[in-house]
Amino acid sequence: MVIMGIDPGFAITGYGIVKYDGNKFSIIDCGAVTTNASMKFPQRLLVLGNRLEELIARYNPDAVAVEELFFNKNIKTAIAAAHGRGVALLAAARMGVDIFEYTPLQVKQSVVGYGRAEKCQVQQMVKVILNLPGIPKPDDVADALAVAICHGHFHGLGSIIGERY
Amino acid sequence: MVIMGIDPGFAITGYGIVKYDGNKFSIIDCGAVTTNASMKFPQRLLVLGNRLEELIARYNPDAVAVEELFFNKNIKTAIAAAHGRGVALLAAARMGVDIFEYTPLQVKQSVVGYGRAEKCQVQQMVKVILNLPGIPKPDDVADALAVAICHGHFHGLGSIIGERY
Repeated sequence: MVIMGIDPGFAITGYGIVKYDGNKFSIIDCGAVTTNASMKFPQRLLVLGNRLEELIARYNPDAVAVEELFFNKNIKTAIAAAHGRGVALLAAARMGVDIFEYTPLQVKQSVVGYGRAEKCQVQQMVKVILNLPGIPKPDDVADALAVAICHGHFHGLGSIIGERY
Repeated sequence: MVIMGIDPGFAITGYGIVKYDGNKFSIIDCGAVTTNASMKFPQRLLVLGNRLEELIARYNPDAVAVEELFFNKNIKTAIAAAHGRGVALLAAARMGVDIFEYTPLQVKQSVVGYGRAEKCQVQQMVKVILNLPGIPKPDDVADALAVAICHGHFHGLGSIIGERY
């Protein structure tokens, strides 16, 4: 199956497309959608939505996995990111793809095996699992790949326990 | 000019379409887009986005005015509302309408003449300004009409002081 992971944000949204054959992961593409700070807020959301729809159309993923927001830091940043996250979820819904949401804790638990893992541990595991030459940059890209891997694990688990993820 | 006001939210998004001739306001339509709590989150965003696009297509407003979020209450509610607000801004951007954002303080200042006005004062003024038989319900609808009126005032002011609102 092809899984698209999204680390939602406003100024920058990470994405990662991976293939998972039930045994191992391989990378198809990854990157970040950035929007120009000189553009008006709604126009930036439009660029984000269009770009994500293009990516979904190009790679036709079986599932889109979107990380939930972690917001104990800056509330203004979280509110802006939530606008972008709404647009990301909408893009996937418009394209008719199955959508799955995971908390940061679920992603860390799934990728590192420990829900309180540090960001660098997650990034290191993403590099190892996908057999990459280095850690993808910026962090949003590595995070997007991590949530894609997380979905692969949950999906595999779901097929064992009989629930659909 | 025709102005569409939006009071953004997630479970319920108020909208109000008013005509402003530079002297007085009249109502064209108002209502609320509600989404079924039994639906998945992304599907609810899809319903919201589609419905707002339909309304914009039907009334072809010259401007869409969207209230900014007020978030000193429940952060979880604010985050959910911000998802919906992102979808609302995107709908207007996709339809190519000019978009304007106003803070709750600007709306109160503009409609009541006092930025710390109570909600009931705003609702009462909406009723009077639009010559309505009663206060529109739910609150989200009255709030949406208020932000539409606010834009009319700013627009009128802009034409006097030479700035474009």
